[in-house]
Amino acid sequence: MIYRDPELVQTVQTIIEIVGTFAFAISGIRHASAKQVDWFGGLVCGIAVAIGGGTMRDVMLGVRPFWMTSSIYMICTVLALLSIIVFAKYVRRLNNAWFVFDTLGLALFTIAGLQKTLALGHPFWVAIIMGCITGSAGGVVRDVLLNNVPLIFRKEIYAMASIAGGLLYWGLYALRIDVGLIVVICFLFICLVRFFAMRYHISLPTLREEEIKE
Amino acid sequence: MIYRDPELVQTVQTIIEIVGTFAFAISGIRHASAKQVDWFGGLVCGIAVAIGGGTMRDVMLGVRPFWMTSSIYMICTVLALLSIIVFAKYVRRLNNAWFVFDTLGLALFTIAGLQKTLALGHPFWVAIIMGCITGSAGGVVRDVLLNNVPLIFRKEIYAMASIAGGLLYWGLYALRIDVGLIVVICFLFICLVRFFAMRYHISLPTLREEEIKE
Amino acid sequence: MIYRDPELVQTVQTIIEIVGTFAFAISGIRHASAKQVDWFGGLVCGIAVAIGGGTMRDVMLGVRPFWMTSSIYMICTVLALLSIIVFAKYVRRLNNAWFVFDTLGLALFTIAGLQKTLALGHPFWVAIIMGCITGSAGGVVRDVLLNNVPLIFRKEIYAMASIAGGLLYWGLYALRIDVGLIVVICFLFICLVRFFAMRYHISLPTLREEEIKE
Repeated sequence: MIYRDPELVQTVQTIIEIVGTFAFAISGIRHASAKQVDWFGGLVCGIAVAIGGGTMRDVMLGVRPFWMTSSIYMICTVLALLSIIVFAKYVRRLNNAWFVFDTLGLALFTIAGLQKTLALGHPFWVAIIMGCITGSAGGVVRDVLLNNVPLIFRKEIYAMASIAGGLLYWGLYALRIDVGLIVVICFLFICLVRFFAMRYHISLPTLREEEIKE
Repeated sequence: MIYRDPELVQTVQTIIEIVGTFAFAISGIRHASAKQVDWFGGLVCGIAVAIGGGTMRDVMLGVRPFWMTSSIYMICTVLALLSIIVFAKYVRRLNNAWFVFDTLGLALFTIAGLQKTLALGHPFWVAIIMGCITGSAGGVVRDVLLNNVPLIFRKEIYAMASIAGGLLYWGLYALRIDVGLIVVICFLFICLVRFFAMRYHISLPTLREEEIKE
Repeated sequence: MIYRDPELVQTVQTIIEIVGTFAFAISGIRHASAKQVDWFGGLVCGIAVAIGGGTMRDVMLGVRPFWMTSSIYMICTVLALLSIIVFAKYVRRLNNAWFVFDTLGLALFTIAGLQKTLALGHPFWVAIIMGCITGSAGGVVRDVLLNNVPLIFRKEIYAMASIAGGLLYWGLYALRIDVGLIVVICFLFICLVRFFAMRYHISLPTLREEEIKE
């Protein structure tokens, strides 16, 4: 089966990783530009989205942050910044492409975070949380830096797609299904959940408003 | 003496830990609901308060974050979210109960953080800072996520109760008092400081306002 | 040559470190006072600037945060708070002095972060990032805590001076120049870049504003 060819799997994974990192960085830089920050601010917000979640995960897992082991993530972010500075108008028109790439990134980073956590001997429920952090905590860091209430607290399902994918991984794993197949299924599942949530504006219910007496 | 019965001590400690975690999570979710975030946002803010401080402490101490070793903290937070979704009206009426539970949590987490730091061989002044972080940094993370200036920078004495308790611990320890007794005294002391500060609206003075020429 | 006298170097470095930490803490407390927080809030913001960057660096490098190894950093911050409470009016008049001290701190902390990272066996590009984080991430934590978009995303060149100094370090190192000399050159270079940027209001260009369709 095709997902068993290790070389192909590696190539596909690397491509998605680069494209996803680039899309994550673009998201950080675009949100930054809405707050009229300078190029350095854009770069930091791009980095925050691209590596923020994985860095939190690695710090909690007690391993060396992944971005220190290869300069590809920083290079992707710098290229994303240059693209936006030079091709701002065109980048904006690619809205749908960024959405697709961002979703591929979410799915890939979720599964990567989940597998890394499992490989270190942690239980599944920790791995699912780490998968979710890998995929979506970077966007939270971006929003905190830019002084916004995190988007994923208010909009279409995003982090929940990641958690749902993690739970599906757990279920399929318990059924002793081949890991390669699980990865493919979960990857597609996360992408689909995200696409449907976006297409039909599916959000979680909002908490009933409450006045806090401080 | 009663605080020397290891089984009883363990049981009491576990109960306070669960009640405290629950109260901390409730605090996160209620503040989140004031910003009209969705259920996921509420969950994240609940988790932030319940485990944020202890996680910062453990990351700085270089040990595995405590919440990864037992799912009880996540379960408490999910239950807190469900309670608020289902019983919002009743939860709101329990204002005083939450205050009491939150204070018990503050006292317990302060002492737990302090003892964990000492056990790792750090000096007392580091342990007092870590106790304070364990008890109150989670609320700061909540406020940062929700785009508020941290409440503990502006309101009744909270973190200072934690620091005062830590200093008292140090003093009693220097007097070679039995550790079990120290814990009981410091626990009650932190609770009392917090109750009095709340009852009589005791705050620290505000810094004189200053215009920063940016 | 004078920079080769180990005792003198040590003394100068310690003095700059104390003065820099003090200036960093002052910056945190002054920004805090603009938001009318209480003394504790001022202390936390002072600590955030004084040790925030180095703590992030050490956590990512997997070593014990530097401030745990000596109480000098906390003492400096407490003294900074006391100075502002007691001498607010005079502290304000020293604007230029704080700018000079803050710049010395930026240059020293950048080089310290860079060298610590290199000593742990990381490549130069990681060390340059860590130098920048050491020098400027504390100010970002301050701004996040106080609910501001980070100043270094919007104003005169600050973090870029740190990065430029790191790149210069790399270049000179590749030329096999004596490390003591490199440190002196890079230190002066970072200070000069910062002074010129401030004097002539040199900023990076702002990202073109973009409306994000959420």
